[in-house]
Amino acid sequence: MRMYDIIERKKRGAELSDREIRFAINGYVKEEIPDYQVAALLMAIYYQGMTDKELLSMTDCMAKSGDMVDLSRIYGIKVDKHSTGGVGDKTTLAVAPLVAACGGTVAKMSGRGLGFTGGTVDKLEAIPGFSPSMNRQRFFGIVNRLGLCVIGQSDEIAPADKKLYALRDVTATVDSIPLIAASIMSKKLAAGSDKIILDVTVGSGAFMKNYEDAVTLAEKMVAIGERAGRQTVAILTNMDVPLGIAVGNNIEMVEAIHTLQGNGPADFQEICEIFATEMLCLGERGDEALCRSLVADAIESGAGLEKLAKMVKAQGGDETYIYHPEKFEQAPYHIDFKAEQDGYIAAMDTERCGKTSVMLGAGRNTKNSQIDYAAGIYFYKKTGDRIQKGDVLATLYASKENILAPALSFLKESYRFSDERPEPKKTVFARVTKDGVIRY
Amino acid sequence: MRMYDIIERKKRGAELSDREIRFAINGYVKEEIPDYQVAALLMAIYYQGMTDKELLSMTDCMAKSGDMVDLSRIYGIKVDKHSTGGVGDKTTLAVAPLVAACGGTVAKMSGRGLGFTGGTVDKLEAIPGFSPSMNRQRFFGIVNRLGLCVIGQSDEIAPADKKLYALRDVTATVDSIPLIAASIMSKKLAAGSDKIILDVTVGSGAFMKNYEDAVTLAEKMVAIGERAGRQTVAILTNMDVPLGIAVGNNIEMVEAIHTLQGNGPADFQEICEIFATEMLCLGERGDEALCRSLVADAIESGAGLEKLAKMVKAQGGDETYIYHPEKFEQAPYHIDFKAEQDGYIAAMDTERCGKTSVMLGAGRNTKNSQIDYAAGIYFYKKTGDRIQKGDVLATLYASKENILAPALSFLKESYRFSDERPEPKKTVFARVTKDGVIRY
Repeated sequence: MRMYDIIERKKRGAELSDREIRFAINGYVKEEIPDYQVAALLMAIYYQGMTDKELLSMTDCMAKSGDMVDLSRIYGIKVDKHSTGGVGDKTTLAVAPLVAACGGTVAKMSGRGLGFTGGTVDKLEAIPGFSPSMNRQRFFGIVNRLGLCVIGQSDEIAPADKKLYALRDVTATVDSIPLIAASIMSKKLAAGSDKIILDVTVGSGAFMKNYEDAVTLAEKMVAIGERAGRQTVAILTNMDVPLGIAVGNNIEMVEAIHTLQGNGPADFQEICEIFATEMLCLGERGDEALCRSLVADAIESGAGLEKLAKMVKAQGGDETYIYHPEKFEQAPYHIDFKAEQDGYIAAMDTERCGKTSVMLGAGRNTKNSQIDYAAGIYFYKKTGDRIQKGDVLATLYASKENILAPALSFLKESYRFSDERPEPKKTVFARVTKDGVIRY
Repeated sequence: MRMYDIIERKKRGAELSDREIRFAINGYVKEEIPDYQVAALLMAIYYQGMTDKELLSMTDCMAKSGDMVDLSRIYGIKVDKHSTGGVGDKTTLAVAPLVAACGGTVAKMSGRGLGFTGGTVDKLEAIPGFSPSMNRQRFFGIVNRLGLCVIGQSDEIAPADKKLYALRDVTATVDSIPLIAASIMSKKLAAGSDKIILDVTVGSGAFMKNYEDAVTLAEKMVAIGERAGRQTVAILTNMDVPLGIAVGNNIEMVEAIHTLQGNGPADFQEICEIFATEMLCLGERGDEALCRSLVADAIESGAGLEKLAKMVKAQGGDETYIYHPEKFEQAPYHIDFKAEQDGYIAAMDTERCGKTSVMLGAGRNTKNSQIDYAAGIYFYKKTGDRIQKGDVLATLYASKENILAPALSFLKESYRFSDERPEPKKTVFARVTKDGVIRY
């Protein structure tokens, strides 16, 4: 078998065999196949796509390139959650404790943020003392005791994906839907959970800019998961506006805490309740109506918040922050973005909103950037909202005063205003399972 | 400027600017841009193509990556000839002496053969003592004195093309028409002739398998040449059968000599007369009718043959071989391919015919393979010919007896027979100039 022939066949649109795909991926990981041949193959895949069969072979091979985590020592049905990323996406912070409070099991390995979206682990690290690093035995122990634990993703998970992603990142082949699906699902398969819920974000602040691409990505990921024997459900959510009000690390922790108390912003509260319900259903806690009411009870009773506090404590963090979110530091300098006219916010370039938060210090430009946990933005008014001249649309927080003005002028470019009320958009667009797509 | 953005823009079908193209090519040559990024760009070009403007930028940049040969010390209008390669293609061996005998000027740098097609330099080296290596002053001197000289192509010609070709060869991006056009024309522009004639071969023994692709390639090369200020004409020729009767080094020299005497196989004789006439027209020796009659005279009088002998002598070769072609050694072992039925030869896989000659030792499998000058094949009957059971269709010659049988059984697979006479094909299909395509 020769890599040349594999490239040539894919270039012409042929379906690669399982053996060919494994030859290419394993050869690349073992450095027997040079990166320039893999780059050519990736670009051919960008144009030709992949069949479901090819995609399962590729994902399985990438998953098995490293550690296949065995979660069998954790009781119950383990349900994993993955989001394709967004601005203000703190969903796991509220959902995982709610699920655990209702008797579900969440053994979560989570990544860090890069670019304009934040990572769950970064936000948890805003709590003094919190550690996402521990050995597997301790991880299993906490999950068995509390029903949840969030740790950083080990370097041993899907190393083929790391290598391929790094190459895609410099060869303009990141935005290939099958390659995105394989990348995400290889890590999910390796991470060992029994079932998978996917938050596929759609819009200007997401990787998928339009609904059709998001459906395609969701369908491909569901197909991979199901063919690999893991029940998989994808929910398409709106990322044409920042999620919730807070974008930053400390302030997103605070927003998650408020949401666990039932006082979150409407869009974020809705998303958290939907995802928690879906995860409980997948975990076979009951039918949808029951799971929904379990979630409502866990909010009402404070059981979800208590779970989060227990998890923080178990992972070395100061759990008093959970009950006293005013302890989370706010950055010393701020600037308001005030409306210059009456009317409506017609649209927000949400990626640009995310990039503004990175400018303020809340995210990473490069892998090794330091995060300023206290920096961030509150978006008081969002797309669709009626505004009056002088209204504070957003407030930007930073630890250095001189970055506020440039950040504000960068942020301003994200907004489009209009005199007419824009068509309202749903928070959740559709649900994709192996049985098809159901629009909300 | 970032290579990433250049790949991304080409991937999306945008036209690259002159600066972007030079940034990519020059960066690659200087090893500032890694091969995996160039591989991704090449694959994107395979799918998206290139505009004439992009193509001229790329070709010019590749030409200028090395030595731009200055032929101004050679008198007259220098006309270069290039063939996209074929089986039994010994055209330059007969055409160059005819052109020189009629007062034209041919300062030819020629490549070696690789794969299933032979190189002009290899065939000339079949003459004892002949050398294609000399310094430029001596080269200019021979051309000024005789009107022709054939030397090997220097490594200093278009090094960017060498580097790109090597990468294309392992990333399945050789068969991109714009990349082929840029590769050929960069060498022609660097080689310094005033005008260019292109033999674009079409068919089973050529790189372009069909007429439409060949026209596209011809048009692109003509556009590049003309935009670079070099008058360029392309002739599309039939490579669905081996050209002439002989395929090998010694025996092709012999066939070229017979053709210079007017006794060549009809198809090869026709092609040589057409190309010699075209080159004289480009060299402004007169109108087409005059040039055609000059060529006929040069054959009739033996002036063409004499030119070849003089060139061989000037380049250190034994010119008595030209007047006594029986001196060319024939390999000691041979086997006949006999017709097993009556009928017609309906088709020949000409690439396979060429590969058979390589098996016999007449060509190179790798750059460093040794050539057996005495090996080769005579194709007595070709596509369209009526055959009777027992007729010798071809004779294979080799210096080792044990390779004859496997070579014959490999060759047999090249033929398709039929009871009905196949539609006859022309030897020359079309002529492509800046004014358009004229079919023959």
